[in-house]
Parts: sequence; C-alpha cells; structure tokens
Amino acid sequence: RINGDRLWDALMDMAKIGPGIAGGNNRQTLTDADAEGRSLFKTWCDEAGLKVGVDKMGTMFATRPGTDPNALPVYVGSHLDTQPTGGKYDGVLGVLGALEVVRTMNDLGIKTKHPIVVTNWANEEGARFAPAMLASGVFAGVHSLDYAYGRKDPEGKTYGEELKRIGWLGDEEVGSRKMHAYFEYHIEQGPILEAEDKTIGVVTHCQGLWWLEFTLTGKEAHTGSTPMNMRVNAGLAMSRIIEMVQGVAMENQPGAVGGVGQVFFSPNSRNVLPGKVVFTVDIRSPDKAKLDRMRAKIEAEAPGICDALGVGCSVEAIGHFEPVTFDPKLVTAVRDAAEKLGYSHMNLISGAGHDACWAAKVAPATMVMCPCVGGLSHNEAEEISKEWATAGADVLFHAVLETAEI
Amino acid sequence: RINGDRLWDALMDMAKIGPGIAGGNNRQTLTDADAEGRSLFKTWCDEAGLKVGVDKMGTMFATRPGTDPNALPVYVGSHLDTQPTGGKYDGVLGVLGALEVVRTMNDLGIKTKHPIVVTNWANEEGARFAPAMLASGVFAGVHSLDYAYGRKDPEGKTYGEELKRIGWLGDEEVGSRKMHAYFEYHIEQGPILEAEDKTIGVVTHCQGLWWLEFTLTGKEAHTGSTPMNMRVNAGLAMSRIIEMVQGVAMENQPGAVGGVGQVFFSPNSRNVLPGKVVFTVDIRSPDKAKLDRMRAKIEAEAPGICDALGVGCSVEAIGHFEPVTFDPKLVTAVRDAAEKLGYSHMNLISGAGHDACWAAKVAPATMVMCPCVGGLSHNEAEEISKEWATAGADVLFHAVLETAEI
Ligand SMILES: NC(=O)NCCC(=O)O
Ligand SMILES: NC(=O)NCCC(=O)O
Repeated sequence: RINGDRLWDALMDMAKIGPGIAGGNNRQTLTDADAEGRSLFKTWCDEAGLKVGVDKMGTMFATRPGTDPNALPVYVGSHLDTQPTGGKYDGVLGVLGALEVVRTMNDLGIKTKHPIVVTNWANEEGARFAPAMLASGVFAGVHSLDYAYGRKDPEGKTYGEELKRIGWLGDEEVGSRKMHAYFEYHIEQGPILEAEDKTIGVVTHCQGLWWLEFTLTGKEAHTGSTPMNMRVNAGLAMSRIIEMVQGVAMENQPGAVGGVGQVFFSPNSRNVLPGKVVFTVDIRSPDKAKLDRMRAKIEAEAPGICDALGVGCSVEAIGHFEPVTFDPKLVTAVRDAAEKLGYSHMNLISGAGHDACWAAKVAPATMVMCPCVGGLSHNEAEEISKEWATAGADVLFHAVLETAEI
Repeated sequence: RINGDRLWDALMDMAKIGPGIAGGNNRQTLTDADAEGRSLFKTWCDEAGLKVGVDKMGTMFATRPGTDPNALPVYVGSHLDTQPTGGKYDGVLGVLGALEVVRTMNDLGIKTKHPIVVTNWANEEGARFAPAMLASGVFAGVHSLDYAYGRKDPEGKTYGEELKRIGWLGDEEVGSRKMHAYFEYHIEQGPILEAEDKTIGVVTHCQGLWWLEFTLTGKEAHTGSTPMNMRVNAGLAMSRIIEMVQGVAMENQPGAVGGVGQVFFSPNSRNVLPGKVVFTVDIRSPDKAKLDRMRAKIEAEAPGICDALGVGCSVEAIGHFEPVTFDPKLVTAVRDAAEKLGYSHMNLISGAGHDACWAAKVAPATMVMCPCVGGLSHNEAEEISKEWATAGADVLFHAVLETAEI
C-alpha cells in the first residue's frame, strides 16, 4: 500500500504555489507560479533518485530505472498546471500520485523490469493557451511543434516565448520517447462515482471534443442613438447561438454536452453595441458520429442566426479530440487491482479530456479515477477526501507494478 | 461667421492625443491621454485670454469676461474624454466649437454683457467609470461628490485616486457656479439628420436612460464532465436576458431602444461554465412612462429566466436620467440662428445622453447638433464633414451671442 499521508502532504505543499482566491489554485501554464511548481516537483524527484529530463514542449519526465536495459518504460503522470480558478487536485493528484508510487517502491525496495517515468505534461488545461493537452498532443504527433509554439494567450504572448521565459525549455525532441504503457490517475471531475458510492473509476473510454471559436462581426454603434432597425448586434447573435448550442446538446441526450465558457465583447463598453464578439463553444460526446453531427448542426445553423441580424460569422475549430477507447489489458489491470485491494469500483467514461487520450495514440494507455465532492471541478472549491486520494493511488500502484513487472 | 478651418485644425490636433487603433481615439477619462488633452486645451484657452478654473470633479471652466459685473455667465461646452474605441468628434466638437466661438468673438472684437465660459466636463462617456455624465451630474446635485470619487474602473481604481494622479483635481466646489444659460454643440450620433438631408438639429428633448447592471451567479464547473442536468449555467441565463431585453425594446417601437454592450464572464475559460456573469442593459426612451415600464418588465422577467436555470440574479441601477425637455427660449434662439444663417434644420430628440441633460436641471439649457456619416458614433470610424462642423459652430455662435447679449 502507498503512504496516503505523504501523498496528501505533497498535495497540500504543491497547493501553496499559485494560490487562488477561494482556497484553490491559479497556477496557469508557463506563468511564474508554474515554474515554481515545477521546481518543487523536480526537488522531490531528485530526492527520490529520479533522473529528470525535459522536452522541447516543457514536459518533465522523471525516470526510475528498470532492471532490463531493453525494456521500454511505463509512464505514469498527469499535469501540474491549473485553471485560472482551479482546484488543488485536477491533474496534480495524477503527478503526485505517480511520485508516491515511486516513493513507495523505493521504501519497499521494489525493483521493476520496466523503468517507471513520472510525467508532468505541459499545458494540459488549455486555459491560457488553447487547445488543451497541447504538449501530449505534440508528443503524439497530433500537432506540430511550430503550431504549439505559436499558440497565443489572451495578451498575445506565445507559448514558445513564455516557455523560454520561465526557463523550462528542454532539449529532448518531443515524442522521441517510446512507451511500454501509460497510466494516468485523475479525479473524476464529474458526479457519477459519488452518486453510485464507488471509490474507484475504471476508465474504459474518454469522450471526444470540439472547440469551435466563433468570431461575430457587428457594427460598433451607440446604444442610445442607434435605432433598433439600424443595429448590427453581434452580442444578440451570440446570445442566440448560445441558446442554439444548448438546444443541440439537449436534443442529443443522453451522452452529449455543450456550452460556452469564454466570451469577449469588443470594445466592451456599456453604451457601445459590440462590433466584435469572440466566444468558444465546447461540445462533447463519447459517440464520434453524434459529436460530429452536433458540430455540423451548430456550424449549419449559426450563419443563418447571424444573417438574420446582418452579423458576420466565422468559425474555427481550435480544439479537437476523438472519443478514445483505452487499452483493454491495462483497463483489466486497473480493475483487478481495485478488486484485489477491496475497493468498490465501476467502469467510467471520462467526461473531460486528458493527456491519456493523446498518449493512447502512441501506446497502450488507461486511467484510474477517484470521486470528487459534488462532481465539482474547474472550481476552486473542488474537493476530495484523503481516503479517496489514497485508494486511487493504491490502485495505480498495483496496476503499474503489474504492468512494469517485478 | 466662425472660422471653420481653424475649428477643423483644432479638432485634428486634439485627435493626435490618445490615438485609437483605427483612426479614432482612446482618450478615456482620467488616463494620461486625458491629462495631455486637457493641457493642450488649457494652452489654447490661455492663448485666447481665458481664465481657467477647475472644480473638484476635474471639470474645466475657461472664462471670457462680460461687460456687466452682475450678469451670470453663458456656459458653452461638452467633453474631451472618449470611448475606448471612440471617434474624433463625439464631445470634442462641442468643446472646441465653444472655443471657436470665443476665438471668433476675439477676432471681431465683440464684447458681451454676460461672460462666456467654455466648459470641458469630466467623465461624460462613463466608459471607464459608470455612470456617464458624472461630473455634470455632481454639478447638478444628482450625485454626491463622495459617490463620484468612489466610482471604480474595471481594474478597481477609483475616480478620486485617478483624478489626483493625473493632476487635475481642482479646488472649486462642484456646482458652486451659477449659469445664465448652457449650450452644448454635439454630433447627432444617429442617422436622422443625414437621412432627412438637414444640416442642423434643433434639439428639443433628450431621451431618458436606465443602466441596469445584472450579476448572475451560476456554478463554476467543467464543460466536459458536468452533465447537462447538473449545470447552473449563468451564461445561458445571460443569453436569455439579452434576448428578452431585445423583445422588450421591440414591443415598445417606435420611441425606445435596448441592448447590452458590456459583458464579463468569470473565470472566462473555454472549459469552465461561468460561475459569475456581469453585464449591463442599456434602455432608453423619450417617454418617461414607457422607459419605466420597460425597466419594470425587464426586472420582473429576469428572475424567472434565472430561476428556471437555478441561477442567482441581482440587478442594480447604475445609471439613470429622465427624459429632458430643453428650454424653449434657447431652443428658439438655436432655430432662429439656423434660419438666419440659411442652414436647413429640423427638430431632434437626442438619442444619447449629454451633460446638457444635467445642466438643464440647474439652468436653461439646450443643444445644437450636426449630422455624422451613417449615424455612426462610439466607433473609431465616426466621421463628419468640415462643412457640417462649421455650420453647427456658426449656429452655436449666433445663438450664444443672442443669449449673452452684445
Ligand atoms: N481534465 C481536464 O480538465 N482537462 C482539460 C481539458 C478539457 O477541457 O477536458
Ligand atoms: N453622447 C454620449 O455618447 N454620451 C454618453 C452617454 C450615453 O451613453 O448617452
């Protein structure tokens, strides 16, 4: 069994870096806080005798050698970056859970045939730089390095510049590492485990996603002196598209979600009708055909909504992953570990995207999940219990041991 | 006749300060650019022999003495502050038009019984600090000085701090000056004069306004892993309120407008349903009963829209003025001047709010308007012709002369 107290202490120590405003964290990708979190993690890796490599996307790989020089490593990780108003566990639990697996192996003097690589993927959240899971996406060959380096934050700073600025530009070619397997431990970020009173989620699939960025062009004009029939109101068009997206998601129940989290009005002044509105639609489904139908319907209906108001409409897909089916052998290893350890468990489809989704393109991959209170995540009030954290890390430990071979 | 070339040159010189990104201006209230614009204006006043006083709200009063020591002054002015993406004429034409009136009097050696005071009201736009027409509102006793000093910009800086910082905190008690009359010259900011092919708007009324700031409270949650039926979606509630406001405005045609120019999503991240949405509804009508009915309907319907989604809803009126009827004698002076000078003219109701609306509470007041291309304002592309600018300033000159008595 892993050491739940030590894992919890590590989580609480990491949460001190980039504190939020309501008990959570703001440790967004490639900020100074991110750099500080990485340094703390590296110190812990050094202390555990791991050798830390960094690739050209800033992903950190901390290796515990195996006994067979020809055996590919088992990678175990997640991400340390957070949302602007994120929780203390989203991603962090998976990185520090992996570290705890290695610390426990050290304590018990366990040697594995395959090396173990504790991994901290860069820019998983996609909050500062879209899309999400950017570094694992480059690793899996989904995005080019140039594309990733050119991604801009809302202030116009690029990923490439900021990675250099915080001092975590590594020298490894991205994707040059080969994996025997990839495991990721994460909080559920949804309500199902808690509702079903299960401690462990055996993650069999991950739903797919489209991020559709709309740019609506209206006519900037005075809210007082511009008659209703002369308005070209991009904000009204946005409102109608948000309602339409809600409708599309509801038509596709069960097994689909859709919503809008980010909106920019320009010039965003109380007495100016917006000349430009940019917003991002997030739609997901575990069913690829359904997901693509939803996208097609949204893209087919939005121009008509805009035309009726004289508003210009352009849309760009700025994030996408297809639904993923995780590796059956690794999924079984997770289920067997939960069973052996006596934790209640059930199969889950991940609602959120994870680095495991991209890793699954280049290696056998799967995930372990633990519950979170009220299914709440992407909220500073995100919470889990020490018992849940411990149970998931125990399951991770045994599934990794099984796969890395003693 | 005034000197149209000199007026135009002054407009173009002022437009160099706080340039925008598309040919207009960003010279928002109490910014460094505002301070620079004020200094240039003061230099011009000094050169014209005017004595410049500044009150505790930062409003500038530049006096040309009259011949009768007991006669109250005729005030003539508008504002030099702009929207973040504002035009070169909105407000500026009225201040520099008033300066041109005085320059012309100087050229022609005209003496008036009543002093003339060229006035630059502070914070007319209300873009950086709501509400609009803040300094003239304090002058007219509508707001207290403390209320005004405490108004905050989106970064949390207060009016009081920023006024001191830019060095334009004056010593005159606000509202201590008494007025014989107040004239304001402004671009129409609407389409009517151009459509009717008239050069001069004789402004008889100004429509009233309510700014209703909504704060909607949802539940910050993951856009992917939060099922549709567990969402408390403040952004969706906002969309429905925007649509409802549009409906209320349309039901009240003709003679009403309504829209939303400013929206803040929090945390404004693509994969987070907003926990908080703040936005401002701007509704207007020249008919007080209609305006108040519109407000009542919006405030009655919004809570139901929010309740249906579980979203919390609070609303605060952060800006208001009642419809204004301008002084019949001054209105006649404007109409007579246009007639005498041979300019085509028509009566207008101002769609936008102006400092004249507050001045009308404490003195006889009215306005002169000239057309603007396409009715466009609050847009960097705002445009007028030199001929229009000149015609309006001529009418202002003659109406002021008539009222200030030679
Ligand atoms: N796990 C997680 O929140 N990932 C961010 C990408 C997504 O929005 O699913
Ligand atoms: N004239 C003008 O744009 N004033 C700003 C206040 C308003 O929104 O009417």
